[in-house]
Order: sequence, then C-alpha cells, then structure tokens
Amino acid sequence: MSERIHARYWLETGDDPRRAAEVIAGEQSSGTFLTLPNETPELKARSGARIERLDVLEQVPEPSLPGGLRSKVYTRCTLELSWPIENLGPSLTNLMATVAGNLFELRQVSGLRLTGLRLPAAFAAAYPGPAFGVAGTRRLAGVASGPLIGTIIKPSVGLDPQQTAEQVRQLVDGGIDFIKDDELQADGPHCPFDERVRASMRVIHDGAQRHGRQAMMAFNLTGDLDQMRRRHDLVASLGGSCVMVSLNAIGLVGLLELRRHASLPIHAHRCGWGYLSRCPALGWDYAPWQQIWRLAGADHLHVNGLRNKFSESDDSVIAAARAVQQPLFAHAPMAAMPVFSSGQTGLQAPGTFAALGNADLIHAAGGGIFGHPGGIAAGVSAFRQAWDAAMAGVPLAEHARTHAELQAGLGFW
Amino acid sequence: MSERIHARYWLETGDDPRRAAEVIAGEQSSGTFLTLPNETPELKARSGARIERLDVLEQVPEPSLPGGLRSKVYTRCTLELSWPIENLGPSLTNLMATVAGNLFELRQVSGLRLTGLRLPAAFAAAYPGPAFGVAGTRRLAGVASGPLIGTIIKPSVGLDPQQTAEQVRQLVDGGIDFIKDDELQADGPHCPFDERVRASMRVIHDGAQRHGRQAMMAFNLTGDLDQMRRRHDLVASLGGSCVMVSLNAIGLVGLLELRRHASLPIHAHRCGWGYLSRCPALGWDYAPWQQIWRLAGADHLHVNGLRNKFSESDDSVIAAARAVQQPLFAHAPMAAMPVFSSGQTGLQAPGTFAALGNADLIHAAGGGIFGHPGGIAAGVSAFRQAWDAAMAGVPLAEHARTHAELQAGLGFW
Repeated sequence: MSERIHARYWLETGDDPRRAAEVIAGEQSSGTFLTLPNETPELKARSGARIERLDVLEQVPEPSLPGGLRSKVYTRCTLELSWPIENLGPSLTNLMATVAGNLFELRQVSGLRLTGLRLPAAFAAAYPGPAFGVAGTRRLAGVASGPLIGTIIKPSVGLDPQQTAEQVRQLVDGGIDFIKDDELQADGPHCPFDERVRASMRVIHDGAQRHGRQAMMAFNLTGDLDQMRRRHDLVASLGGSCVMVSLNAIGLVGLLELRRHASLPIHAHRCGWGYLSRCPALGWDYAPWQQIWRLAGADHLHVNGLRNKFSESDDSVIAAARAVQQPLFAHAPMAAMPVFSSGQTGLQAPGTFAALGNADLIHAAGGGIFGHPGGIAAGVSAFRQAWDAAMAGVPLAEHARTHAELQAGLGFW
Repeated sequence: MSERIHARYWLETGDDPRRAAEVIAGEQSSGTFLTLPNETPELKARSGARIERLDVLEQVPEPSLPGGLRSKVYTRCTLELSWPIENLGPSLTNLMATVAGNLFELRQVSGLRLTGLRLPAAFAAAYPGPAFGVAGTRRLAGVASGPLIGTIIKPSVGLDPQQTAEQVRQLVDGGIDFIKDDELQADGPHCPFDERVRASMRVIHDGAQRHGRQAMMAFNLTGDLDQMRRRHDLVASLGGSCVMVSLNAIGLVGLLELRRHASLPIHAHRCGWGYLSRCPALGWDYAPWQQIWRLAGADHLHVNGLRNKFSESDDSVIAAARAVQQPLFAHAPMAAMPVFSSGQTGLQAPGTFAALGNADLIHAAGGGIFGHPGGIAAGVSAFRQAWDAAMAGVPLAEHARTHAELQAGLGFW
C-alpha cells in the first residue's frame, strides 16, 4: 500500500494559516506540542500528515467559533491534507478518528469543516458498499424507471400496529411504490415492531396480489445489534423488502454489522444531521459524510428536498444528492439512491430532475399525497404524473391539461 | 412503564418561543406540519412530547445559525421537553433519534443545544453501565487511592511495535500507573495491533515482576466489530488490563457490543467531540452525551484538562468531569472515571482536586513527564508528589522543599 488518504477542509484561523495547517497536520499524525527527541525526520517523513494545498479565501475581523487564539484578523482558507495509509490501514472507524478527530478543538482553529474526502482503492476492497443500490432497489420495488414514489407513515408516532397497517392499506391501494416508518417509530411499547411489521406485511401482500407488484416498506429497526438482526430476520421471513435505520443513532459499527447480516436493502436515515452540519463554520459537509456510510453499506440516503420545511438551502440539497449518486471509485461506484423528503409535492419534480439529470431516487411526500382532494390514490397519481412531465420535459401545467389528478394536485399543492 | 424522558435545551428562535417549542415538540413526536385527521386529541395526549418548561433568557438582533426564519429579534430560552417512554421504550439508539434527531434542522431554530437528560429507571434495567468503573479500575491498576498517573505514547503515530514497547519500558520503570495508545494508533500496517500488544505486554509483565504492580495500558482497538473482539481477546489472553476505543468512530452499537464481549475496562476516547460541541449555539453539552455512553458501558471518559492546549474553558472541563462522576440513577450510579489530559503537568493537580473533591480519576501528562530534567521516573514522581500535596492541602512549593523531583518539576513545568 502506498496511496494516501486526502481530506479537504474549510479552515478559519487566528494564526498564520500555514502554521495553523502545520499544527493540524501534526496533531492528526506524528506531531506534538513539544518537539520530542524520537520524532525523527525519518518518522515525520514516513508518518506525518502532509499539507497538499492551502488557499487563502478571505480575512474577517471576528472568529466564527469561540475559544481559539485571539487575533485582530481571522483568515479563511481551503486546506487539503493527506495521510499515508500505513498510519491506519483501510479502516473506516480509524479514518473517522484521523480526519475528524481532535482537530476541531484546536486553539488554532476558529472554524473547521470537513468538505471532501478521497480514499485509496484499498477501502473499496475492505468494505462492501451498498448490496442493492439503484438496480437492486428497482428490482425489489418493481419500478423499472422513474423515481420511487414514496411516503412516510404519519403521525410519526402514536398509531398502533393496526392503525399503521390501515394507513399502509390505503397507500398500497393508491399505488404507492415506497413507504417508510418515521425515524421516531422503531419498537416502542405502544407500537411494537413485530406487530407493526406483521400487520403491515399482510396488507402489503394483499395489495401485491391485487396489483401484481409489491410496495416496498422500510421498517425502522433501529436498536441494539441483536434487536436489529432479529427484526431484520422477521421482515425478511415475512417477505418484506427493506429495512431502515438511523445512522447517527447506531453508528458505524452498527451499520457495518447490519450490512453483514442483511439480505434486504438498508434505508439510511440521517436524523441528527443538523448537529453535524448546521453551523457553517464547523462539522461536516454531506459529501464526505455520505461517502463513509456508503462504503459501510447504505443503499438509500436521505438528502432533504428542494424548498423543504427545514433550514437547508436548495443548493445544499442538490449537492448532497449529487454526492450520493457520484461513483466512489471508478471500479467500485457503490452508488446509493438519494431520498428526497420534507415538504415535498409534485411541484419539486421538475427542479429535482433538472438538477440531477436522472430519476434514480426516492421522492417522498406526506401532505402532498394525503391532502390531495381526490384522496390518496389521486395523490400518488398526481405525484407520478408530475414526474412523467418532468422527465419528458413538459411543463406541469401543460401535462395537467390531460391528467386530471395532476390538475387537481396543482390546485392543492 | 409510565415514566417520561426529559431533555433540556438551550434554544434560540426567530419565532415566538412558545410556538417554536410546540413545533419542536411536535416534530419529535406526533406532530406534523399539516394537521392530519388521524392526529386525534387522544393520540396527541398519549404520544405527544410535552413542554415542561420554557424560560426566556434574552433577545438578540442576529441569529446564531443561518437558514432559519427571518426575524427582527431572536429569543434565547431554556426549554425542557418530555416524552412518554411508550413512544420508544428504554432504547439508547432510539433515544438519540428522539432527543437529538431532526430538531436541529428546523427553521424555527436559529440555535439549539442539548444541555441535559433525565431518564426513567427502565434505562438502568436495559443497559449495563461500566463493568469496572472506579473500583474495578483501581483494583486492576493496583492504585488504592489518589489518581492514576498516566501518559500517552508519543509521537501519536509513527513508532513501530518495538519502539512503542521501548517507550512503555521506560514508563513502567519510571513507576507509571497508566499508559494509553494515541487515538490515531490502532492497527495501521506500520504498527500492527497484535505486534504492539505482544511487545508492550512483555515489557509490562517484566515491570510487574520487578515492581510488584502491573501498569495498566489501554490498547486502542478501534475498528470493525470482529476486529475489536479479536483484539480484545488478544489483550486479555496476554494478561492486559484495559482496552481503548474512539466512541464517535464506532458509534453506540459498537460500544454496546464491545461492552457485552469485554472482560476488561473500556477506556473511551471522545475524539470528534469538537464537531459536536465547539459551536455554542449547536449540538451537545457533555453532560447528556456522557450519560448515554456510560449507560452503554464506558469505564473511563475523556474530559480534556485544566488550562489545556485545546479551546475548551476550565469551567467546561470541570463541569464535564463532575458529570462523569455524578450518579446516573440513585440505585444504579454507573460512575465512570474522568480522564484528564492535554497539556497537563503537576501544576493542574491542586485545581483539579479542589474542583472535584476527590481523586477518582486518571490524570495523563505527556511533556510534563517526558520532559522532566531528571528523566521519566523523576517526571512520574514529581507528578505524583504534586497530587500528594494537592490532596493534603499543602501548596506545591511547600511540598517541593522536601521532594526533589517536584522541586525540579516546578522549575520545568
């Protein structure tokens, strides 16, 4: 192995930028605050992180984050560091400790955000990536082209298993492709996982017999490892086709072990993403973050949606979705499906398609389907018609002239 | 089960604070953006999160975080929410998704930080807590009272197994209580875990024979689950007494599974803590964060140190250390040992002891030991003498008059 791990950062520092970069590189490899006699030039050349690039962007008078060196001016820059893979081997957990470890706490840092990651091919050999990805998900969902039209059980939490199954029945009858549990609903005493899955799968199989196509439902099995394995096996044994998990809750070992065990696609929820990303001067961009989870085996990754109900900008949403679709390695693309949700309706179909240039995605709407004046089936149809129009390059209003559900949807959305 | 989960937040909002609190409570339980026909009053009363307390602190003209509702004024408050445990059961992973999930991304939020957590006793029944804690660690380290005087192998990364063992030998000969790998050093090709452990344990056993007491070494086994289990078993089979792991790298399932498997204390490193906490308006306080990891089984938890080389204030360090020592439940205290490190010397002993009122802790110094003019053994002695003085309430300078190593240390530190 001789390839290096590359990480890019947005850095703000009250120190000289070159010195700050050297402190960061040192802290995350062979350096210490005191020069030690055994940190020889040979050791440093072999094991030290290297500054590959440092470009000054601008200077500002106030620090973005407190606690750093006091200065009259804070310099913002882009920084690229690299590490020899001999320091850690192709290990995702140790990659985390290396590229996203202590460095955020340094006094030389008044802002630091991990913006990019380039990994040696050894990681592709060491980790499986998604087992299903786009092709496998399409096959199991019976959706050969276009997006999977999806929705989320609502209220998020509070329905019992029978009430959940009743909502699933309506959605399946309405022709939905994809349903997911809310991330708040896993195995609470009021809506136990097993009962919810049994009741829902009965309804899904009934629907499949009538429609000739089985809706995919992502059951949220987030929990301890034994619980997740057991819940996965229940879903599989009942003929289900997807499981869901909250990545920040279970962590990297959780996803790796679920991926090893699973025979179904893994729908990966990013709840908690806000605390990793909402401060622009700190934390993670989505591009490097999703890379790690794709390597570990996520098939579907949430990316919010255009004009969403949250605080994320459209540019950020699209950058995230493109990142999820971008090949990780030329020989091992490990592409996952981006999941668009949050305040979505057919109105976002044209913009989403235009930005990505493809429909290899899941598009989930709640109110946009349930609230349709013609009912759930009309809501699903209207959403699908909006996508048909978007993919054909036809304006929604024009397509709506010959598609009544879309027409009614446009009035409602 | 009828107890509720309580979480406290620091909240900043461009909205009316009461409305913002209701949106947060709704988003994290039964609410949605549209009122749904099946969100009945009964369902809401049973499953909705409840606003227990909302106290306005101040108003500011600019938002701390971008992307939220625009307003002329942003109100800062403390907010306490509670959830019925029936929503999720006593599940740490689902607790994460509930108290630290989507809420940080809401447009009603221009700042949100989780500051406290109070859990029903069901969590104490569902999770093991530390297997060793203070008493077990003291027993294995052979340190009946006072702090474990510790250090970290340096350079962090770059030494090979033999060079590491040579450093361990010097430390053991110097009378050290505790040694840890750096969080950057796990199983890299240049310093494979197995060889490092074998070489180090030979030296540690030699030292134990001479000194009648075995130094505790925390070997960093961070990795995938199989790797961690196998590495743990190697350490145990060679008579080692501690393993170390990076919590944010492996995640909650990783620690839970390691705890289930382990027969040794788990030294928990918090690298990455900066991206969770460095922005005061976002993320996590240490108190609720460490609670989750203690329940999951961490025996030792890093808390930085007084006058550290990083950006954290002394107040924050002491609050973190007190949190680690505070009982989680009256009947199940699950206390862990705080680990003080980063730019530490004997000079920080009096302040650390005064703030905690006890010495149930690990205090690690690097340069403060290695750089002592009398060598490593003198460095360890000086550090220990500083603690003896602190615990006896004697000023360091006074104690130094009759303790040559401390005298020399004071000149050097």
